[in-house]
Amino acid sequence: MKKVGVAILGLGVVGGGVYEILTEKREYFKKTQGLDITVETVLEKNVERALSRGVSKATIAANIEEVVSNPNVDIVIEVMGGTEPAKSFVLKALMSGKSVVTSNKELFAKHWSELEEEAKKMNVALMFEASCVGGVPIIRVLQDGMQANRIKSIKGIINGTTNYILTKMAENGADYDTALKEAQKLGYAEFDPTADVEGFDATYKISILSSLAFNSKVCIENVYREGISGIDKDDIAYGKSMGYTLKLLGIGKQSEEGIDVRVHPTFIKNEDPLASVSDSFNAVHLVGDSVGEIMLYGRGAGSLPTGSAIVSDVIFAAKHSENYYTPFKNNVKGNKATKFVSDFVSKYYVRMLVKDDAGVLAKISGQFAKGDISIKEVKQMSSEENLAEIVVITHPALESAMQKTIEKIVSLKEVVAVKGFIRIEE
Amino acid sequence: MKKVGVAILGLGVVGGGVYEILTEKREYFKKTQGLDITVETVLEKNVERALSRGVSKATIAANIEEVVSNPNVDIVIEVMGGTEPAKSFVLKALMSGKSVVTSNKELFAKHWSELEEEAKKMNVALMFEASCVGGVPIIRVLQDGMQANRIKSIKGIINGTTNYILTKMAENGADYDTALKEAQKLGYAEFDPTADVEGFDATYKISILSSLAFNSKVCIENVYREGISGIDKDDIAYGKSMGYTLKLLGIGKQSEEGIDVRVHPTFIKNEDPLASVSDSFNAVHLVGDSVGEIMLYGRGAGSLPTGSAIVSDVIFAAKHSENYYTPFKNNVKGNKATKFVSDFVSKYYVRMLVKDDAGVLAKISGQFAKGDISIKEVKQMSSEENLAEIVVITHPALESAMQKTIEKIVSLKEVVAVKGFIRIEE
Repeated sequence: MKKVGVAILGLGVVGGGVYEILTEKREYFKKTQGLDITVETVLEKNVERALSRGVSKATIAANIEEVVSNPNVDIVIEVMGGTEPAKSFVLKALMSGKSVVTSNKELFAKHWSELEEEAKKMNVALMFEASCVGGVPIIRVLQDGMQANRIKSIKGIINGTTNYILTKMAENGADYDTALKEAQKLGYAEFDPTADVEGFDATYKISILSSLAFNSKVCIENVYREGISGIDKDDIAYGKSMGYTLKLLGIGKQSEEGIDVRVHPTFIKNEDPLASVSDSFNAVHLVGDSVGEIMLYGRGAGSLPTGSAIVSDVIFAAKHSENYYTPFKNNVKGNKATKFVSDFVSKYYVRMLVKDDAGVLAKISGQFAKGDISIKEVKQMSSEENLAEIVVITHPALESAMQKTIEKIVSLKEVVAVKGFIRIEE
Repeated sequence: MKKVGVAILGLGVVGGGVYEILTEKREYFKKTQGLDITVETVLEKNVERALSRGVSKATIAANIEEVVSNPNVDIVIEVMGGTEPAKSFVLKALMSGKSVVTSNKELFAKHWSELEEEAKKMNVALMFEASCVGGVPIIRVLQDGMQANRIKSIKGIINGTTNYILTKMAENGADYDTALKEAQKLGYAEFDPTADVEGFDATYKISILSSLAFNSKVCIENVYREGISGIDKDDIAYGKSMGYTLKLLGIGKQSEEGIDVRVHPTFIKNEDPLASVSDSFNAVHLVGDSVGEIMLYGRGAGSLPTGSAIVSDVIFAAKHSENYYTPFKNNVKGNKATKFVSDFVSKYYVRMLVKDDAGVLAKISGQFAKGDISIKEVKQMSSEENLAEIVVITHPALESAMQKTIEKIVSLKEVVAVKGFIRIEE
């Protein structure tokens, strides 16, 4: 039976899950995979934490050098998060001829090319299933299940924290701050929630996923990013009444105009299969030119779901001698070789607070017309005294034209404020 | 660049899709996969059909011997369907040292072990992604994305024809015959629809999928099978009003009691993610002990979606030198090595036409009680004159106890008939 020795860097939530799966299922993997996988060493500063997970003192390494020089270690699992020292540790492991399995989306989105170059040089595996959408094997599907396709689009709910917050805002009419606090209390959101709520986490993931989908490196600099912290619960309610559900989507599209990748709050039709993905669940919807629509749904985070993805990579790396290296030039910041759309096209939802005068709607409509933006639907609701709210849904328009039009609308004396501005995908 | 020569056996709907993808995307695969894949030869009796797809006369083989003796052929794609001559052809290909990619679920469900033995002997690949759920990479996910898990259950809408029929019956209140005729007119159902509507096709697929999921061979003899031809539109409507959607499900469960695999019409909750999978779409829902819930959704059939799965297997086989052989003993009919449940547990929906007498409900309830079956919900509706309809929803009960109770209920003089009997999964 093939013996596989692994090292785990970091015994936090995910590292703990990996350790649990590998130790509890050693016999199971012998039987089902023909592999004897053993945890040879772990690197964890917090010795108490390591011991409390059942790791013996002798298994805890003093430093990264001890890990990468251990001849019994074939695969190094990096689950520390952050870019440093994770990056140096991963590079050391690769340079020592160890294969690496990581869940680190930030590291990967920022330094993929550098890591891959080293892995290629040493002919070892560099695997990252757990970096995107936790337990859902989306990377495997993109690499080994969709090769026959030119992928036209990828759309995903790829951040559980924001999906939880938006679900609570929609279900309970909670405002953003209340929903965030609830998410923090339940451990779905960090004390500093910036990475999640401002869309950085989703940006890392859609950068990785759309690179694979489009066979072209999509750097995080190529991704338009907007988070959910500015979302008003009223827009969620108005959208709902007009047939839309609000989600923070990672969106990647490829057409003759180029590649278009973004992260922003997005209204989707209530009937869209992504609309019913609630709480901390994740889902990714793909369209391939041969296969048509495909959707994958599951847990995007958590100790055991992410552990499942890590262990899946460990087993894959142990079973195959051929390693995966991406076929695209992925080392250029700004990425001149790839054509990106300079200005994307979307439909829009705009909510304006206006003075309740006759003719205000005509003035606003006029501005949309001047911007060459066709209106699909208008809804007017009286608000406080002498004020009204107007919601406009547009047909597809250029983002730049839309931004200019909004500027002009804001400057109208009848318009108090543009209160809501949300892109629509349908 | 690695050259890969393929042969296609059968240029019907799926074979045509495979030919189209491989010829149109030859340059794309060179660029993205580093493989130069060429169709070296095809075997198709209907020469006209082959020519009409753009195949040159010189490419058409005279017989299987010519195909398997062609030194330029590395991989043989079998998309003929049926067990013979497909089985002989696949065996000849394997014996000649060719890898085989097949979409043939019937062949695979019935003769997997024999084929695998030959593949193992010759150390070639035997791949079958396209045999289950068309373009959805469920086999890849089970083999390479869920290895860390003990899978507890697999539930799937794995036959598009029946899902289309049931969707139309639910949406339009159409009866079975009308919906079937519509499906036939649109090409979703065959002229002889038996394989689909009686659940044979779904049985082949769930036999393959649950074998992989549970690491134990599940023969088709181990699968309880019941089709949809006896479904009354009234039961769909009553179910709907009680919160249930009717689907033909393939179900596999593994617990300490053993393995339980079935295909039958099933009520699921309207909120179940599988309930919104309509028309000819397919979906598979899995529960793993580490990853929790996962669902995959997409096209289960059709020329290009199935072609996508075939080509995906071709690329995988070409890129990897290690082949997959199943770790379970899969050669025993009846399969004594694996523990199967002798009597499964389910919830039930029962609709009875009864005489509208006082006391009839008491009598019926009495029979359920005697059978040790606990009732969850009862609904009584007046029907024609002097007759009433009673619908009973039960708590979980043994199938054998339920069958005995139904027998007793039928024999009650107050009961005209048991009109509907449908299992519930929630």
